[in-house]
Amino acid sequence: MFESAELGHTVDKARYEAEAAQLRTDLLNVQYELKEAGRFPVIVLINGVDGAGRGETLHLLNEWLDPRYVETRAFGVPTEEEHERPPMWRFWRDLPPRGKVGLLFGSWYSLALQGDDGQGRIVDEISEHRAASIVRFERMLADEGALLVKFWLHLSKKAQKNRLETLEDDKKTRWRVTKEDWRRFEEYDRFRRVSEHLVRRTSTGDAPWHIVPGLDDRYRSLTIGRILLESIRRRLDLPDHTRRSAEPPLFHGRLDERNVLSALDLTLSLPKKTYNEELKQLQERLGRLSRHKRLRDRSVICVFEGNDAAGKGGSIRRMIQAIDPRQCSVVPIAAPSEEERAQPYLWRFWRKLPRQGRFTIFDRSWYGRVLVERIEGFCTTADWMRAYSEINDFEAQLVAHGAVVVKFWLAISSEEQLRRFEEREKVEFKRFKITEEDWRNREKWDEYSEAVCDMVDRTSTDIAPWTLVEANDKRYARIKVLRTVCERLEAALA
Amino acid sequence: MFESAELGHTVDKARYEAEAAQLRTDLLNVQYELKEAGRFPVIVLINGVDGAGRGETLHLLNEWLDPRYVETRAFGVPTEEEHERPPMWRFWRDLPPRGKVGLLFGSWYSLALQGDDGQGRIVDEISEHRAASIVRFERMLADEGALLVKFWLHLSKKAQKNRLETLEDDKKTRWRVTKEDWRRFEEYDRFRRVSEHLVRRTSTGDAPWHIVPGLDDRYRSLTIGRILLESIRRRLDLPDHTRRSAEPPLFHGRLDERNVLSALDLTLSLPKKTYNEELKQLQERLGRLSRHKRLRDRSVICVFEGNDAAGKGGSIRRMIQAIDPRQCSVVPIAAPSEEERAQPYLWRFWRKLPRQGRFTIFDRSWYGRVLVERIEGFCTTADWMRAYSEINDFEAQLVAHGAVVVKFWLAISSEEQLRRFEEREKVEFKRFKITEEDWRNREKWDEYSEAVCDMVDRTSTDIAPWTLVEANDKRYARIKVLRTVCERLEAALA
Repeated sequence: MFESAELGHTVDKARYEAEAAQLRTDLLNVQYELKEAGRFPVIVLINGVDGAGRGETLHLLNEWLDPRYVETRAFGVPTEEEHERPPMWRFWRDLPPRGKVGLLFGSWYSLALQGDDGQGRIVDEISEHRAASIVRFERMLADEGALLVKFWLHLSKKAQKNRLETLEDDKKTRWRVTKEDWRRFEEYDRFRRVSEHLVRRTSTGDAPWHIVPGLDDRYRSLTIGRILLESIRRRLDLPDHTRRSAEPPLFHGRLDERNVLSALDLTLSLPKKTYNEELKQLQERLGRLSRHKRLRDRSVICVFEGNDAAGKGGSIRRMIQAIDPRQCSVVPIAAPSEEERAQPYLWRFWRKLPRQGRFTIFDRSWYGRVLVERIEGFCTTADWMRAYSEINDFEAQLVAHGAVVVKFWLAISSEEQLRRFEEREKVEFKRFKITEEDWRNREKWDEYSEAVCDMVDRTSTDIAPWTLVEANDKRYARIKVLRTVCERLEAALA
Repeated sequence: MFESAELGHTVDKARYEAEAAQLRTDLLNVQYELKEAGRFPVIVLINGVDGAGRGETLHLLNEWLDPRYVETRAFGVPTEEEHERPPMWRFWRDLPPRGKVGLLFGSWYSLALQGDDGQGRIVDEISEHRAASIVRFERMLADEGALLVKFWLHLSKKAQKNRLETLEDDKKTRWRVTKEDWRRFEEYDRFRRVSEHLVRRTSTGDAPWHIVPGLDDRYRSLTIGRILLESIRRRLDLPDHTRRSAEPPLFHGRLDERNVLSALDLTLSLPKKTYNEELKQLQERLGRLSRHKRLRDRSVICVFEGNDAAGKGGSIRRMIQAIDPRQCSVVPIAAPSEEERAQPYLWRFWRKLPRQGRFTIFDRSWYGRVLVERIEGFCTTADWMRAYSEINDFEAQLVAHGAVVVKFWLAISSEEQLRRFEEREKVEFKRFKITEEDWRNREKWDEYSEAVCDMVDRTSTDIAPWTLVEANDKRYARIKVLRTVCERLEAALA
């Protein structure tokens, strides 16, 4: 795989100067077009062998491109705020928005190559788990429209040794060679073997690797410049809609009317006295759990979805009454902001993830994609179809990092909803809660029900199961929500 | 000042229940109106004596208000990312956007009351410096339209002691009383004396304190709810424009034509050979400085302003060529995003501040307010007039935290600008750089010149001086920029 990169390619100075001048102009032009169009971000990954010119490449691209529309990110030791979220949080945090070029140094590949010993040592082999999760992540980026340009800079072992020695011999560059570099040089063979596997495993149609010989500065620079130019050029020339895969077939109808919603017994209810007693007990129990020692390095993420007027707000309020407001926040999800629209769909949820020891309650959530966006046609069928696996992936990362993920669907009957809508229109202070849109959504009751059933089928997992809540009786619903949260927390902290 | 709060106010249960029900409805209504109008944020500060019910007040407001439009922030020990910026960064970071209510627990008042020993001990007296900086900050918030509602919850010494003892006696609440609480109780007298001074000094027309007796839960809750309701109600009823102060008088004309711009010798130039030699030397010097050990806990913030086509981009590129791209980012300033427009003017610059050891280069900056916004009428005269002192304050905080602030105005003559505009229109790849707006701005040359002179007069300070750069000759300008950066860095790191 790296053979071609060891052939000793070179470019002479005259050719370099002639070609570089044109290339720079073309790159600037294409960059301004990218900015103007604002359709997609360009994510450039710079990885490879030490001494193969990764730093020089960063420099080069910063010099050749207009630095105003370039975001350079180097990922070193994670900060405390980064440590408190799943490992991919820092990369989500630093994704370039549409129209910009992000130069990522280190990135998820350095993470995949390193063992968990905290010493930055190379792993013995790339686990299928790590490779697959990278492929999924990049697939998501590509599906979201991002252009990924991945450079792997290569040097032979001999060339790497020469390179380190040359740097050490010159007093101007001596500072760049550390003991750590020589230690890593000792790992060359392992690094090569493991990274070859990683590169092979993660070279996909959406995001192929470009292996670039690192020995000759001029050869390397021109190669990288051209690949970047061509990649952006080609994408700009594609009409926007072609990035969408063909519409996948819709689901086929079910053979009967039985589904997870119709199976609910919406007549379940609680008398007021029982409710008051249980509410008090459960809130005390939740309060104690929220102060549990073992929660200090965990977090709690609750998702509330449900029919309009199903009583999400009331349930959320009963829940947060039990928790110190300092460790709890409620995030209402409505239309995305301008900055959020310039990023992949899940970005706005990643940015709201709680630190350790805290609760975040999402009032509506990332499931909007497979509910309202699906039904209203705000995204393509391909978009919401892939959302199921992206969401499962997202929640798996949360749970793997120690978050407790609790998801509720609050279900009411169509008749109960009508009754509540009419009541809300009568009561002055509740009128805020009911809009034209609610009435329009109501007309699509059956479509919503189908979407909910699909959602539960496809995203209720062992690690992040859905709890369907019979909510025609508000008291019953609130108690079931509180009890579920307590039980999930007890199980997690046990 | 606290006498009235020690009189032992109480409210009986019947009255509480009757009034609380109405109050909650009214609060929700006013909160929805606030959200709908989206005109201003409400910043509620909850401070006061330990045990006076600050936590309960947070709980209460979270329960009474719709939690979706409330952001609760408690400021404990700063994170590493917060430590690397000026102390006010974390508060800027957590300001609620327009339309929302932010409940701030701790806030800048806790900071002001604490000594620098890292132990959270109460200072012996409030320095005029701390008090004045709070008044300026809140004045800025008020000028930006924020509604500040500040609650100081009071308890007498005896009542505080009783309170701690009562909490300790009940096994359900025992966890809430720590050794630290008793240590702080020992400091009661000092705390009272110092905080009285702080409260007095920071009670302003824009942001008065409300001193609330903390002893009786019902009295406290009703009082706080009513004050909050009335404050929001009154502000919503004001027409939007009344929040602007009357337009202050414009400047008077100068007696002659001499000013900092006309005093520049724009014929200054450098031959190519000298330029190439000096460029190389200065870039090496800057490169060394960027790796200086003492820079590790400092940061560098460069501001580039100048006439259109004065060559800001070229100067910035020469500068970043010398620095490791991983420690440097360029932030272009154009129109604010939607999230930025929902915050005070300086918010979007605060959010871009570099961590320690890093450079951030602003291509245009916070000076937009006193240049383009002033001239194009994007803000009122009052807004840009107050911007001078807000900016000086901002830069003083940066410098106090160890940042090196270097500001450039790149000046060219009107004739040179015309030549460059015409040249840009000819060269295909430079055409991106010239827009209709540039031609329109050009017609306002004199107004811009006046604004620049005012800006320099009012914001060139000892700690963050302006460097005016004669930029008719690009080579001369780039060298002057680089040399200035090196000299400022050397002085700072010496």
